[in-house]
Amino acid sequence: MDDSYWMWGKNASHPRILHAMIRVRNLDRSLDFYCNKLGMKVISQTDFEQGRFTIVFVNFSDDFDSGAIELTHNWDGAEDYHHGSGYGHVAIGVPDLAAFHMRLTKLGVEFTVEPKVMIAGAPPLAFVRDPDGYSIELIQTGGYVET
Amino acid sequence: MDDSYWMWGKNASHPRILHAMIRVRNLDRSLDFYCNKLGMKVISQTDFEQGRFTIVFVNFSDDFDSGAIELTHNWDGAEDYHHGSGYGHVAIGVPDLAAFHMRLTKLGVEFTVEPKVMIAGAPPLAFVRDPDGYSIELIQTGGYVET
Repeated sequence: MDDSYWMWGKNASHPRILHAMIRVRNLDRSLDFYCNKLGMKVISQTDFEQGRFTIVFVNFSDDFDSGAIELTHNWDGAEDYHHGSGYGHVAIGVPDLAAFHMRLTKLGVEFTVEPKVMIAGAPPLAFVRDPDGYSIELIQTGGYVET
Repeated sequence: MDDSYWMWGKNASHPRILHAMIRVRNLDRSLDFYCNKLGMKVISQTDFEQGRFTIVFVNFSDDFDSGAIELTHNWDGAEDYHHGSGYGHVAIGVPDLAAFHMRLTKLGVEFTVEPKVMIAGAPPLAFVRDPDGYSIELIQTGGYVET
C-alpha cells in the first residue's frame, strides 16, 4: 500500500475539509477527464484487494494540503451510478475561464452550461459533466471585471 | 448582496478545488449541525430573491482559501432530497478523533460508523450523517500511532 494514502498534508492541527468522494465506473476514463483534461494530478492511488476497490485522490496540487476529489472504483460495479437530487456539484476555480473553456472544448469536453455571467457583478461560471455524469462547476477566480 | 460571495480567497492564479455543493431542506438545522456541532463557520450567506434560494458557504477557516461546503436551500423545496448511489461523502480531517467523537456524541450527533481503525496502519475513521442524510467521513489527521 502506498504510504502516502494516509498522509493528509502538513496542516493536521485543525479540523479542515479534506475531499469529496464520488464513485466512478471506469477509472481510466475518469483519470483522463480529471488529469488530462481538467489538469489535476494523481496524489495517491491505492488498490484494496480484499474489498475489491481502488481509491485515487486527485487535485491540482502535489499534496493533500488543498482540497481533493476521491475517486472510488469498485472493481465489480456492474451498473451506472445514479446521482440523486441532493448532491449538486464540485466547484473548481480557474484563473481564466475563457481560456479553460477553449482548452476543454478542443479536448472534446461537453459543456452543459457555457461560460456566462449569471448574475451582475458575479464572475463567469460554466458547468461540465464528468464521464459518470457528475456535475463540475467552473468559476473564474481571477481577473474578471466587476460591474 | 454580500460582496464576499464572489471572493474566492487569495489564491486565484492557479486552478483549485473550491467547494462541494449539497442541497438542504432546513437551513437552520443544517447550520446547527455544520457550525454548532462540527465547528465550522459561515463564510458567506446570500439570498437570491428572484431564484428563491439561499446559498451559505461553511468551512473551518475564515475565508475561501481552504475548501468549503456550499449549502443550497431552495425556499420552495417540498420533498426530501434523495442521495443516489454515486456520491459518497465529504471528508473532514480532525486532529483528535476520539475527542471529536466525544464532543459530537454529547451534542446528540449519531454515528453511522463509530471511530475505528479499518485497515492496519491507517488512521481512525468514523462516519456521521448530516440532518439531510449526507454522509460525512471523519478522519484523524494528527497524532495516531502508525502500526
